[in-house]
Amino acid sequence: MEPLKNYPIRFQQDVVWGDMDAFQHVNNTVFFRYFEDSRMAYFEKAGVMEFMQESGKGPILASTQCRFKAPVSYPDRLTLAGRVETMGSDRFVMKYLVFSDKLQRIVAEGEGIVVYYDYQASMKCDIPSAIREAIVTLESECGNQAGGFE
Amino acid sequence: MEPLKNYPIRFQQDVVWGDMDAFQHVNNTVFFRYFEDSRMAYFEKAGVMEFMQESGKGPILASTQCRFKAPVSYPDRLTLAGRVETMGSDRFVMKYLVFSDKLQRIVAEGEGIVVYYDYQASMKCDIPSAIREAIVTLESECGNQAGGFE
Amino acid sequence: MEPLKNYPIRFQQDVVWGDMDAFQHVNNTVFFRYFEDSRMAYFEKAGVMEFMQESGKGPILASTQCRFKAPVSYPDRLTLAGRVETMGSDRFVMKYLVFSDKLQRIVAEGEGIVVYYDYQASMKCDIPSAIREAIVTLESECGNQAGGFE
Amino acid sequence: MEPLKNYPIRFQQDVVWGDMDAFQHVNNTVFFRYFEDSRMAYFEKAGVMEFMQESGKGPILASTQCRFKAPVSYPDRLTLAGRVETMGSDRFVMKYLVFSDKLQRIVAEGEGIVVYYDYQASMKCDIPSAIREAIVTLESECGNQAGGFE
Repeated sequence: MEPLKNYPIRFQQDVVWGDMDAFQHVNNTVFFRYFEDSRMAYFEKAGVMEFMQESGKGPILASTQCRFKAPVSYPDRLTLAGRVETMGSDRFVMKYLVFSDKLQRIVAEGEGIVVYYDYQASMKCDIPSAIREAIVTLESECGNQAGGFE
Repeated sequence: MEPLKNYPIRFQQDVVWGDMDAFQHVNNTVFFRYFEDSRMAYFEKAGVMEFMQESGKGPILASTQCRFKAPVSYPDRLTLAGRVETMGSDRFVMKYLVFSDKLQRIVAEGEGIVVYYDYQASMKCDIPSAIREAIVTLESECGNQAGGFE
Repeated sequence: MEPLKNYPIRFQQDVVWGDMDAFQHVNNTVFFRYFEDSRMAYFEKAGVMEFMQESGKGPILASTQCRFKAPVSYPDRLTLAGRVETMGSDRFVMKYLVFSDKLQRIVAEGEGIVVYYDYQASMKCDIPSAIREAIVTLESECGNQAGGFE
Repeated sequence: MEPLKNYPIRFQQDVVWGDMDAFQHVNNTVFFRYFEDSRMAYFEKAGVMEFMQESGKGPILASTQCRFKAPVSYPDRLTLAGRVETMGSDRFVMKYLVFSDKLQRIVAEGEGIVVYYDYQASMKCDIPSAIREAIVTLESECGNQAGGFE
């Protein structure tokens, strides 16, 4: 699981039977739920939701994608991983991995672009410095530069 | 579709492929989504959500059940139906039906108990009279007594 | 967690952020997914799915219900529990519990009636004796009579 | 709705209350369900599923992405649209649009790469000519070249 090593978010989640579709594999939409689980875990570690409640500035998912590498089926235990790969002034790019215990391989890779938004002003805004620093710290703890900031 | 006739809420919804599970039938949890769709359509007609925003008094689902009469599969067009069967002082009972166009039969029947709650006071409350009257009107338009009020 | 003690199925599952609805609580349909997770874990322990592949005889969920005792929100860790309470000739009744770590209480209780079906013959059938024995064993290991068979 | 005109698949679907998440907007994963609905409707028109049952050759979703243009909330009526933009020897690229009746604008755009797979041989295969022709016909009916085939 080399490539998972430098992801600040790594946790296990069992595949749920009901997430399989009529083709008897985990449905494609569920992988975006996995990504969301990683994203929310990351946000919690970086204090994103607390900051949003105080300041009215929070993240919006602007786009996301997934490459499906192998079908997943119940029962299996997955490792979900998330990291911030690059940061711009008002946005950052997250990378996600899904690793299957049963298949012993990465079964899906994804990305998401997260934009910062000022809900009071109803417009995009810069990533607040408290959040930016939290992200840099989380990434550097995993040996990442977390940025090559734009 | 005789039995649907006296349901104030009746609308059609196509079965979605991804709602089927690995047994190639619509998953049991989805029927509770269908019930929720009927419940929300009813709430809209009775002004429940608007009243909640003004008054802080709104509905809570206390319990629900479903009897599955026949398996449903994609493609199919369903008729979802909802009505209020009885009202007490602080709660009412909803009945739901799901009718399959393809099978030409009722495929699921359900019930839900909805309790009124005062979110300001953090306690149960009586059904507001505006809501009670709206429900009586909706039901009587379908020839229902909507009550045999407890 | 006294009442969980005599449930053969007990496992933990973290609440997923995306399972909350616009009322900021875990949506009612998700509790039936939790019940399904317990049911599938039970089926696995009792060899239900393997037996079905060999014999063409398997379980069908005939009805299910849930009583919601307290709203659940992210983040939280739930304990999901399942047991077979009574068995008839061609059906058994499962009981489900959902316990919240954060609230330190049972947040939902449910039941489901599972009927045995012979997919070859397209009709109901008796619970196969291998399955019946597996259930009795699982329940007796938790001190349950698992039956008072009808 | 100019841009929808040259999509062979166009159908309406009401937003479901329960598809909103705790941010009170339709959750990001649901847009991939919308895309799947368009894809399945396209597959039905092109005879993809029937051909798969006869031949054992069928489609696999290799990757997908979505750009979220505006948040969607209940109630709303969406138009879901899908088309095949390009075809290679063993794959084609689908484009998806989601148009909001309430906002009168496109709220999401997506893409998916669909690869043909021979389930008997357990390997990728060329798009069967019957399917290729059905796609060309569907696209040309909308004035599309459906290809600029690689």
